[in-house]
Amino acid sequence: MSIWYTEKHTPHCGITMAVKKSLYHGESDYQTLDILDTHEFGKVLLLDNTVMLTERDEFVYHEMLAHVPLFTHPDPRRILVVGGGDGGTIREVLKHNSVEEVVLVEIDRMVVEASTEHLPEISLGLKDSRVDIRYEDGVRFVERSAESSFDVVLIDSTDPVGPAEALFSRNFFQSCHRALRKEGVFASQSESPFFHLPFMMDVRGRIDGIFQQAEFYLASVTTYPGGTWSFLILPSSTRRKRAPLSSLKT
Amino acid sequence: MSIWYTEKHTPHCGITMAVKKSLYHGESDYQTLDILDTHEFGKVLLLDNTVMLTERDEFVYHEMLAHVPLFTHPDPRRILVVGGGDGGTIREVLKHNSVEEVVLVEIDRMVVEASTEHLPEISLGLKDSRVDIRYEDGVRFVERSAESSFDVVLIDSTDPVGPAEALFSRNFFQSCHRALRKEGVFASQSESPFFHLPFMMDVRGRIDGIFQQAEFYLASVTTYPGGTWSFLILPSSTRRKRAPLSSLKT
Repeated sequence: MSIWYTEKHTPHCGITMAVKKSLYHGESDYQTLDILDTHEFGKVLLLDNTVMLTERDEFVYHEMLAHVPLFTHPDPRRILVVGGGDGGTIREVLKHNSVEEVVLVEIDRMVVEASTEHLPEISLGLKDSRVDIRYEDGVRFVERSAESSFDVVLIDSTDPVGPAEALFSRNFFQSCHRALRKEGVFASQSESPFFHLPFMMDVRGRIDGIFQQAEFYLASVTTYPGGTWSFLILPSSTRRKRAPLSSLKT
Repeated sequence: MSIWYTEKHTPHCGITMAVKKSLYHGESDYQTLDILDTHEFGKVLLLDNTVMLTERDEFVYHEMLAHVPLFTHPDPRRILVVGGGDGGTIREVLKHNSVEEVVLVEIDRMVVEASTEHLPEISLGLKDSRVDIRYEDGVRFVERSAESSFDVVLIDSTDPVGPAEALFSRNFFQSCHRALRKEGVFASQSESPFFHLPFMMDVRGRIDGIFQQAEFYLASVTTYPGGTWSFLILPSSTRRKRAPLSSLKT
């Protein structure tokens, strides 16, 4: 029997991949979680039937979400990661020697537990002594955080529907700005420039008057919609001159 | 009835898209040709059941194949395009005011005829008075060309199996180098860095001792395998210093 998993990226197109077998299926209060073993991409983590990562190309997404903001900061010591319970972003953050503490705020304990069991090469950093895992809502956690708590805030979220929607709101950007120390840097995954450009422009508008500068950067992630993914980066101070955002047009 | 077209990029994965209707099906001595109207990507041109272009994202491929080499050349006047009977590359080449003549060598008349009829916004340049279309084998055409005939040679080929295989051979690179004028520039589509990196490295090895410099550049083409596509560019002289090729690793 030949089993194929197909994810629709819009109602009219998608990606399809041959499945060796299903390794895990779980349901939490927040979402369903599946781990499939596939011929082409190795193990694949799905939340609500949407690809979160594959063993073959997760390095691109996680390296780009972590290293661009951490190298933008002059001395990143205390890092907040919202979402990303699989541990891939944490693994990359911990490669920076300056990092003293990482707080991971993941709403869904099932993501951490399933990843720890089935994706050891991705989740390995979750056991590092510098990592503090909190199972709670990221929006409320940041709202409650003291001013100037973090050098870098990284949003490693699912698509902006359901639980992750509030992570792209003006209120949340305001809380994050408050929680950032001087010279702090915020970065977030920000969807596909091919399929979601209006969303990206919309989100970009929501930071007006909060952060003084906003830029997008791109990376090739084969198994994400469109094959190219965007990231939003917001430095809390305008220490250096950068290219204007107007180079990206709707 | 819901009709979906699925192209396998490897035996184990692919892209899938919903089809409104089939506009054209033809068979020549060389290949099959289909034009589908799709919900997400507009009209789609297939050769041997492989996506050549879609109305939605063809501009990326054609702009990048044409403009990078043409802007690399100080004064591109006479251009050769091998393949590309759909006219998309020609359309972009003709945007350069310096261009006086473009020779299009397309092995398959059916590609030009079907594109002219069904893809008018892509093929429009084929009727320009500066364009000379020859229906013949590109390899033989270049072998027969006089020395120093062209400022820029662009290879807009199908995948390197069957008819297009010879367009990636050492002999062909040698013929192209001979056919290029001083300061000439060669560029070719060169497959997916995600799925075909060994092929790219192999091809890169075949130009040793012919061209003194070789570089790859990339672009996001959503409907091509992996979503990111590569192009090989070979300047015939080393007029300017460029980054070393070793920055791309296997």
